[in-house]
Amino acid sequence: MLPTKEKLYEIIFEADTKSGKIFDITLLVIILLSILLVMLESVPSIENQYHQLLRISEWAITIIFSIEYILRIWIVRHSKTYIFSFYGIIDFLSVLPTYVALFFAGTQGLMVIRALRLLRVFRILKLNRYLKESAIIIRALKQSRIKISVFLFAVITLVIIIGTIMYLIEGAENGFTSIPRGIYWAIVTLTTVGYGDISPATPLGQLLASMVMIMGYAIIAVPTGIVTAELSKHNHPNISTQVCPNCLSEGHAHGAKYCSNCGSKLN
Amino acid sequence: MLPTKEKLYEIIFEADTKSGKIFDITLLVIILLSILLVMLESVPSIENQYHQLLRISEWAITIIFSIEYILRIWIVRHSKTYIFSFYGIIDFLSVLPTYVALFFAGTQGLMVIRALRLLRVFRILKLNRYLKESAIIIRALKQSRIKISVFLFAVITLVIIIGTIMYLIEGAENGFTSIPRGIYWAIVTLTTVGYGDISPATPLGQLLASMVMIMGYAIIAVPTGIVTAELSKHNHPNISTQVCPNCLSEGHAHGAKYCSNCGSKLN
Amino acid sequence: MLPTKEKLYEIIFEADTKSGKIFDITLLVIILLSILLVMLESVPSIENQYHQLLRISEWAITIIFSIEYILRIWIVRHSKTYIFSFYGIIDFLSVLPTYVALFFAGTQGLMVIRALRLLRVFRILKLNRYLKESAIIIRALKQSRIKISVFLFAVITLVIIIGTIMYLIEGAENGFTSIPRGIYWAIVTLTTVGYGDISPATPLGQLLASMVMIMGYAIIAVPTGIVTAELSKHNHPNISTQVCPNCLSEGHAHGAKYCSNCGSKLN
Amino acid sequence: MLPTKEKLYEIIFEADTKSGKIFDITLLVIILLSILLVMLESVPSIENQYHQLLRISEWAITIIFSIEYILRIWIVRHSKTYIFSFYGIIDFLSVLPTYVALFFAGTQGLMVIRALRLLRVFRILKLNRYLKESAIIIRALKQSRIKISVFLFAVITLVIIIGTIMYLIEGAENGFTSIPRGIYWAIVTLTTVGYGDISPATPLGQLLASMVMIMGYAIIAVPTGIVTAELSKHNHPNISTQVCPNCLSEGHAHGAKYCSNCGSKLN
Repeated sequence: MLPTKEKLYEIIFEADTKSGKIFDITLLVIILLSILLVMLESVPSIENQYHQLLRISEWAITIIFSIEYILRIWIVRHSKTYIFSFYGIIDFLSVLPTYVALFFAGTQGLMVIRALRLLRVFRILKLNRYLKESAIIIRALKQSRIKISVFLFAVITLVIIIGTIMYLIEGAENGFTSIPRGIYWAIVTLTTVGYGDISPATPLGQLLASMVMIMGYAIIAVPTGIVTAELSKHNHPNISTQVCPNCLSEGHAHGAKYCSNCGSKLN
Repeated sequence: MLPTKEKLYEIIFEADTKSGKIFDITLLVIILLSILLVMLESVPSIENQYHQLLRISEWAITIIFSIEYILRIWIVRHSKTYIFSFYGIIDFLSVLPTYVALFFAGTQGLMVIRALRLLRVFRILKLNRYLKESAIIIRALKQSRIKISVFLFAVITLVIIIGTIMYLIEGAENGFTSIPRGIYWAIVTLTTVGYGDISPATPLGQLLASMVMIMGYAIIAVPTGIVTAELSKHNHPNISTQVCPNCLSEGHAHGAKYCSNCGSKLN
Repeated sequence: MLPTKEKLYEIIFEADTKSGKIFDITLLVIILLSILLVMLESVPSIENQYHQLLRISEWAITIIFSIEYILRIWIVRHSKTYIFSFYGIIDFLSVLPTYVALFFAGTQGLMVIRALRLLRVFRILKLNRYLKESAIIIRALKQSRIKISVFLFAVITLVIIIGTIMYLIEGAENGFTSIPRGIYWAIVTLTTVGYGDISPATPLGQLLASMVMIMGYAIIAVPTGIVTAELSKHNHPNISTQVCPNCLSEGHAHGAKYCSNCGSKLN
Repeated sequence: MLPTKEKLYEIIFEADTKSGKIFDITLLVIILLSILLVMLESVPSIENQYHQLLRISEWAITIIFSIEYILRIWIVRHSKTYIFSFYGIIDFLSVLPTYVALFFAGTQGLMVIRALRLLRVFRILKLNRYLKESAIIIRALKQSRIKISVFLFAVITLVIIIGTIMYLIEGAENGFTSIPRGIYWAIVTLTTVGYGDISPATPLGQLLASMVMIMGYAIIAVPTGIVTAELSKHNHPNISTQVCPNCLSEGHAHGAKYCSNCGSKLN
């Protein structure tokens, strides 16, 4: 590997050095700009008024992204690994639409895939102090994975049953035109979103809906309780800051007199 | 009992053996398919287009369920216990509508009872690692049963009083046509669902509604607090059940090798 | 006091004896029936069809309540204390409307005051095991009283500022006809109720609304956190069940070797 | 500094003395009245009926505020520091509109800046017992600052991606006229506000919406968990700051009279 290539690798793929951080943040700003651009293009009134400016900006960003993409392929040791990785595919797809639009009309819609580049934002989490805090959240979510699966399982079963019953009670004349629509209503209600695009009209339906709402009120306590209990686990007041003078192990309880790892006396 | 019968019993009613697990999962998939089928049938456009296919699938599933039902009666030691059990009745009712529909029209609606078969899904919770995690949630909910009853009690009293007052303030011209409807509105508001099918129109009504909403915002903290406190009780993951063979002290951390009290080796 | 009077006092005002409990529960059932009656009367279609039956039931309940009210005055030691107490006034007002309606029309509306009698339901909380659990909730709410006041204070300041800004941004043409209406909208949004009777129509208004919603999402964590932390306080794992052999004091920490009250050695 | 000036400084800028507290509370009441006034003026029907009264009250409050503002400038040691401070600018802007309105029409709208004076309410938090409790909440929020940033970061990324996908699925004919509008919908849904001004109409859109709602149901657990875990950290109410004079052990319960480690008397 050439020294230049190695240095570029550090800048583009890593975030430990100062220039690496600058690159990451600059890229993030450009990604945010590119997303803002896609958003503005989707607003008809803005698109009509600033058509020329938006076209130029789009090409500018596409060219920057293309250079970045080519650099990444050139620099990385195993090009194929990058090209077929999750980020590699997104990087490719986010430059494609502008070029394809030269030949075919109507492919601008694909530009929205650029929003997925926003996921790179999470690389910034690797920077300094965000790392530890986000790790705590992610670990808590991972550890409550099974509990949350069981919970979602129960909720899905519940909304299918409730949605089916409501379809029978209310029927098509009150907007519950099919069972899937009844289930959609049950989810809207149980999660306390409550659009109001479908709402029960019969007294019996309203009684059942009231019960579902109060249930939803109590059910929301479950995921909250799961995540909170998990996050609170790291709240241990009983772990002292003592370090064993013999084996250097940590995490001893307050009041511990002997190291729980090697058995030598603690201070 | 014949050896075949005994083996079938193991497969159908238990979930410990490998073939028992395969049976349970297969059955679950068929139940999910049957529910999907009932859903699709309830959508008018799909029903019209794929009428023939849906009819055939329905008969296929009904026959499978019938065979399963007959097998269960034949295999189980006390047929009556099964037939009149909760699952036995659901199993029977979920095959009935298709047969009855041969002679009478309009009984297809009963097919929705099939959704209740989905409850069998919870048998899968008996499998391996889901067991422990769901047991924690269920225990926490059971232990907070009385607290949640008291809470629901208070909420129901509150919505009756609020609903009655709003009926007096707003009256029939603003959609509060009766006290039950006022109570329905109070539940919709307090649980933060907020359909918007009924909403206060007078300034006094909107003032009261604002107070109810802020109250609801604070009230939701109560069930969450109850369940979280209960789930957090089991939050001492690092305390093993080990007892020191020398000084009999307890409360050692998982992975501790030496007693933190006397320094002797733990098992 | 006559022995009969004394016994009646025990039955009507206390809940410790068996007959006292029976009286309380019977009264509660009649209160529930009377509320159900008021509800049904408020539904026009039911009122028209069962007018006669509802009238008779109403008189029956009014007479029962009147007898109960007179008994209470006769039995209680200090009649005035009861008559002018909270429950005394409610008891009086809940029988008044039926009598007044004989002479004046349109006073039926006052009947809804009967809903307040439902508060007697909370006497039942004095019974057995509900007592302890509801005491925990009430204590937790009392102890977090100041924290919740500070929180509500902050929320009210916030909704006034947000409501005023939205009134300026959106204006009367989008439904924000006055500042109080803007504040009403802010409360509806921040508490995630979201009726949709007023919703922002300008891009700037929708941007602000988005920020308010995300804020509301984070803000709801505060009261929940307060109540949960308070309820979890009683979760102490470190309190052992040891009793001091000398002074019989309890509540010693796990690992305590000497009584923290009298200084004698613990077992 | 003159003795009068010094005393006035104590009254106006501090809240420790009795007269300082009285000043603070009086000012708060006037601020509340001034905000109420601005609110009432914004209601067309009230403005028309009580025009004269509202005008007089406005001038009365403006003069009081003007005197207060001049006093503050005169009293404070470094006038410039106050004038260009946050509160100084708000104090100035809250009296300006009434004077300007003498010469120019249409500046009444600026009066709403007065709502910001309400922030002075938080000075009252400096008083007695509110201080400690609000400090706990603020500290908990500060300590969970980074965790909440990471959470908001993830939520914003999520709503951009969801909003973009929904714009593609539903399109302008169902109200999703642009990507920003799709994002607005995603926020309304994920936060469970659910106005219903835009709601999905296609089956695919409703399926995605259902998934977003259930996600939002689980996501709300995260900020709640973060704040609760933080608030629970301070949940060791029984641990006093006493140190044993004999063995220097800490962590004794409030009210402990003897050291639980060596049995000697505590102070």
